[in-house]
Amino acid sequence: MKAVRLYDYHKQPIVEEVPEPVLSGPLDVIVKIGGAGVCRTDLHIIEGQFDKVMGPQLPYTIGHENAGWVHEVGEGVTNVKVGDTVILHPQPSCGLCLACRAGRDMQCTDAFFPGVSNNDGGMAEYMRTTARACVKLSPDTNPADVAALADAGITAYHAVRKAIPLLHPGTTAVVQGAGGLGHIGIQALAATTSTRIIAIDTHPDALELAKKVGADVVVLADGDHVQAVKDLTNGVGANVVFDFVAEHGAEQDGWLMTATGGSQYIIGYGGELRIPTVDFVLGQKNVVGNSVGSYSDLVELMALVEAGKVALHTQQYPLEKAAQALEDLANDRVRGRAILVP
Amino acid sequence: MKAVRLYDYHKQPIVEEVPEPVLSGPLDVIVKIGGAGVCRTDLHIIEGQFDKVMGPQLPYTIGHENAGWVHEVGEGVTNVKVGDTVILHPQPSCGLCLACRAGRDMQCTDAFFPGVSNNDGGMAEYMRTTARACVKLSPDTNPADVAALADAGITAYHAVRKAIPLLHPGTTAVVQGAGGLGHIGIQALAATTSTRIIAIDTHPDALELAKKVGADVVVLADGDHVQAVKDLTNGVGANVVFDFVAEHGAEQDGWLMTATGGSQYIIGYGGELRIPTVDFVLGQKNVVGNSVGSYSDLVELMALVEAGKVALHTQQYPLEKAAQALEDLANDRVRGRAILVP
Amino acid sequence: MKAVRLYDYHKQPIVEEVPEPVLSGPLDVIVKIGGAGVCRTDLHIIEGQFDKVMGPQLPYTIGHENAGWVHEVGEGVTNVKVGDTVILHPQPSCGLCLACRAGRDMQCTDAFFPGVSNNDGGMAEYMRTTARACVKLSPDTNPADVAALADAGITAYHAVRKAIPLLHPGTTAVVQGAGGLGHIGIQALAATTSTRIIAIDTHPDALELAKKVGADVVVLADGDHVQAVKDLTNGVGANVVFDFVAEHGAEQDGWLMTATGGSQYIIGYGGELRIPTVDFVLGQKNVVGNSVGSYSDLVELMALVEAGKVALHTQQYPLEKAAQALEDLANDRVRGRAILVP
Amino acid sequence: MKAVRLYDYHKQPIVEEVPEPVLSGPLDVIVKIGGAGVCRTDLHIIEGQFDKVMGPQLPYTIGHENAGWVHEVGEGVTNVKVGDTVILHPQPSCGLCLACRAGRDMQCTDAFFPGVSNNDGGMAEYMRTTARACVKLSPDTNPADVAALADAGITAYHAVRKAIPLLHPGTTAVVQGAGGLGHIGIQALAATTSTRIIAIDTHPDALELAKKVGADVVVLADGDHVQAVKDLTNGVGANVVFDFVAEHGAEQDGWLMTATGGSQYIIGYGGELRIPTVDFVLGQKNVVGNSVGSYSDLVELMALVEAGKVALHTQQYPLEKAAQALEDLANDRVRGRAILVP
Repeated sequence: MKAVRLYDYHKQPIVEEVPEPVLSGPLDVIVKIGGAGVCRTDLHIIEGQFDKVMGPQLPYTIGHENAGWVHEVGEGVTNVKVGDTVILHPQPSCGLCLACRAGRDMQCTDAFFPGVSNNDGGMAEYMRTTARACVKLSPDTNPADVAALADAGITAYHAVRKAIPLLHPGTTAVVQGAGGLGHIGIQALAATTSTRIIAIDTHPDALELAKKVGADVVVLADGDHVQAVKDLTNGVGANVVFDFVAEHGAEQDGWLMTATGGSQYIIGYGGELRIPTVDFVLGQKNVVGNSVGSYSDLVELMALVEAGKVALHTQQYPLEKAAQALEDLANDRVRGRAILVP
Repeated sequence: MKAVRLYDYHKQPIVEEVPEPVLSGPLDVIVKIGGAGVCRTDLHIIEGQFDKVMGPQLPYTIGHENAGWVHEVGEGVTNVKVGDTVILHPQPSCGLCLACRAGRDMQCTDAFFPGVSNNDGGMAEYMRTTARACVKLSPDTNPADVAALADAGITAYHAVRKAIPLLHPGTTAVVQGAGGLGHIGIQALAATTSTRIIAIDTHPDALELAKKVGADVVVLADGDHVQAVKDLTNGVGANVVFDFVAEHGAEQDGWLMTATGGSQYIIGYGGELRIPTVDFVLGQKNVVGNSVGSYSDLVELMALVEAGKVALHTQQYPLEKAAQALEDLANDRVRGRAILVP
Repeated sequence: MKAVRLYDYHKQPIVEEVPEPVLSGPLDVIVKIGGAGVCRTDLHIIEGQFDKVMGPQLPYTIGHENAGWVHEVGEGVTNVKVGDTVILHPQPSCGLCLACRAGRDMQCTDAFFPGVSNNDGGMAEYMRTTARACVKLSPDTNPADVAALADAGITAYHAVRKAIPLLHPGTTAVVQGAGGLGHIGIQALAATTSTRIIAIDTHPDALELAKKVGADVVVLADGDHVQAVKDLTNGVGANVVFDFVAEHGAEQDGWLMTATGGSQYIIGYGGELRIPTVDFVLGQKNVVGNSVGSYSDLVELMALVEAGKVALHTQQYPLEKAAQALEDLANDRVRGRAILVP
Repeated sequence: MKAVRLYDYHKQPIVEEVPEPVLSGPLDVIVKIGGAGVCRTDLHIIEGQFDKVMGPQLPYTIGHENAGWVHEVGEGVTNVKVGDTVILHPQPSCGLCLACRAGRDMQCTDAFFPGVSNNDGGMAEYMRTTARACVKLSPDTNPADVAALADAGITAYHAVRKAIPLLHPGTTAVVQGAGGLGHIGIQALAATTSTRIIAIDTHPDALELAKKVGADVVVLADGDHVQAVKDLTNGVGANVVFDFVAEHGAEQDGWLMTATGGSQYIIGYGGELRIPTVDFVLGQKNVVGNSVGSYSDLVELMALVEAGKVALHTQQYPLEKAAQALEDLANDRVRGRAILVP
């Protein structure tokens, strides 16, 4: 089969013929890929940023936002059968550790992350995952339409879902960064709460999209945006700030926009928060870390998609054009989300 | 009446005769003071640190940890009557703003803080507060025995109470700083959870006390204490770190001791947290701000006191010896908590 | 002033001249009534059903769904001033008991209920309430448009709000009884969740309205409706059943429609639940009691109204026509909610 | 191997030689039994009460409270290895359905219940379960000492744990029925809360034990016990009533003892609750169903046991004496819990 293989850091991966993956455990599932999202994390992998953290052995197949059809199942698999349409949670978990038993899949002590850790990913015709990663979809779903929700979508939804109890009518939520994740966050917020949504971005066209998908107010990140949020909230600030940027100073802005008693949700990364501890005390404010989401989060997100409440703009490329898709993403030439289709 | 009055920053307050306070509103309550705690915050007030934040006009009477007996009540007061023994929430709240309506008393938009803000405090024979600050006690309670719980106690209890749902059996909590607040925190944790309690302090005698009041393990803060917590938790860290220090680097230690998915509760202050945003994401960790506590927190804390589950070591001084008590505190010569008794 | 006074049980109240109410405590507020809702509870009061429970002394003025303008305030009132447009929480609470301090206003141990308990209500030109009942509205709000939300609205909203954490995407909620309260419940559910809403009623026109205001599916209560809910949920049942009827057997239907692990919220009354305790155990199901709502609930509901997400159909009558409005209600001739306007 | 086999309803099971169980799936685990609890449910099974609900084919091996050592594991098992000491969750779950993914193991759609459903249980030398049922214990634990916690213990603990957020200091909890489950419930309450515990039972010796293991007050169920609870709570009632009886009228008593805003937790069964819906509304009270508990609950309970905070009184019988143990239980001759040891 064809696969997008990374041979050297700082060089584009190549498309080549490799053997199809095989079942290696009783809960394994081989999926025929219908679509694989191209994500900024792929650029970081190519730059070698995950070399030490995740330790993949080169060459290997990248691609961690995957959907397709079940092709083969191990003897212990009971939740899906050959032919089922599925979207794949990006991190198959063990199902036996205490974190898994409590539904905290991302804290599994025995998980792997195909396409990022030392396991082949989904930019290929077939891929190996496990039963615990498979979310069954309606058979008329086109995997290429939803693949990018497997990572970008679940991450945005997870943060929003955690914050729902804080966002009753009359509150204000800020979405800082209205790009790939942010515009799914806005849709999820609009679908599951009646909070007032303020979207902030440096790009006017991102704000236009934000408005279209549910933001109540949009604010250009032009240096006066912290004050703008204060002005929009009678000087109080936002109850929750979803920080999809969290670098280049946005992380400090996010903190300053947060109201007394409120919370800044960190979802993006790259920067450093510097906060005097007295500000936590006087403001009774919180900073909350978020990482991807649980299997249940992905199931719920797909329910929103099937109800037409969350949609993703995609731009498809044939698998062979992986390098071009990666370059387009690096150069900001992708509208919505790039998807490779084998 | 006699009162402890601050005339100049950086000078000890003096004890002098002043007129008794009078009712100024229908919910006002005049309390005959039975005991007034001497707190590190009083030292900071004298140093002028609250000058800009709270803006008290000098001279004024300090003292914000107060208990005594109801002396006179306004026409709208229905919850206490003359002669009742009471401990006073340090920040009388309005009862009408949205924060008050939701039980978030410390976020009241129309509160004052006698002895800290521009209002006379309780180092005096009488003090003015309001009905919303009065927690009625059993008539056989000696106010001098409990006064310090009005601020130090409620602050420690509030943080512990918020964390109870995170501290099921099998978890680990760290109490960083086993001094005045910390040793109440340990007692509250032991009374309301079965978490394993690790107390950390730079003073061996503080650790001895910690052990006596309920810590399961004590660790000297000698530079290896972060590693010690890791070793005690199979490398995982603590589910909740109660940071009663939050300065001089303890705030960074607290973060490093926190397990994946765990939370650092900031209660002390003085330092600065510096955390790369990626560490929030990878660790799914949180930092939680805390400030004093609600009226209900104080009621619950007093229930623990009446049940014999929380006790305070005190050292009494006559009101006239206020300056000496403040000096003893500044020079670390107070065992337990210093209390002024008029 | 004119007021609607009940002189004898089982007889229509009469409209007569009475003295205007006066301030009797420092937190009292006199409100000039702009609209007073006519509620089924008023019919029950006239029938004498509240005689023993609430003990009003006849004659007195009824009316417990009120909105208008502040006319006079006691000396302790700080949250509203003369001229403010307000909607009134139906049960002024004390603000001092433990329930009030925790935001559980309906459990206040020192509350009264004007128009139901032994206190004059709002079917009059003026009415006495307290500061703790006043929710300030935008000055361009017409009190007659929103008055009925003061009781019917808050009751429906309160139940929905409590259930939000149970109603994530992919769940199903049943609204049993799509009348006055139910159709507000449907709007609140649609605004604050993405649960699938099934509305059930015996009247086809109620179902038509239900569909218009946000129900995803409507089911006629024709005897097969429990099975219909099962069929719509793959045999599982609903995660939450909001039972706005709770009499004439609907209460048993509600229980049977509830999924394993789910909850039946009782809001209506009149019937009796009979459930073998083994069914609680095998089904891990719950029955949850609800009564009106908190001040914060009313504030949040008004935020939904101002955002255009909850609306009320009303039919106005001049105050003098109170008897006719009551008769129309008793004879099912009111479309939406009857409102008396002085 | 030897096993306790039920051949006919209404007749004592017999001990006979049967083949050892074998692995039938990749997650299967064969456990060498160290102790099997004898439970009242076993009496009900013999009486045929589970014939229709669970459909076991006779003859089969009973016993659903099991602990021992891992004897053999399937190829997909990663959480335990041969020789590990384990206690077994009574209902192995699939790990793949939505309930399992959220930690609601008892709502698994693909579970079985060895010794109750059509699967051989643990009154034998060996038993087949799955990896998802195995909780690893310290190697020096004697399985016979803890086996009964696998069902009776987890059930009591689960109910208590759910209620912890309701039971802050100053509240009151009633434990109705201080027998096998109840006295574990009392210990769990004392370990994880500071609520005041009132134990109620018809047997004075059960009350004596209740007192010894942590009840603050004991009340004989002599007909005046509802009033006694009211008297002990200033007429208010208990915040939570744990109803371990729920038959013979106790279920009605439990409801009447519950305070406004409080909850009755149903854990026992056999009776029928009859409650006018208006009482749910006026009292804002809840009835909460409970069934066994999750895997995590069992892990936490074992942490309490290892900390010495929960202990079980047991009376051991050799496996051959199963019939006698069952008869002793039926005739109230067992002190604590009967345990069969192979």
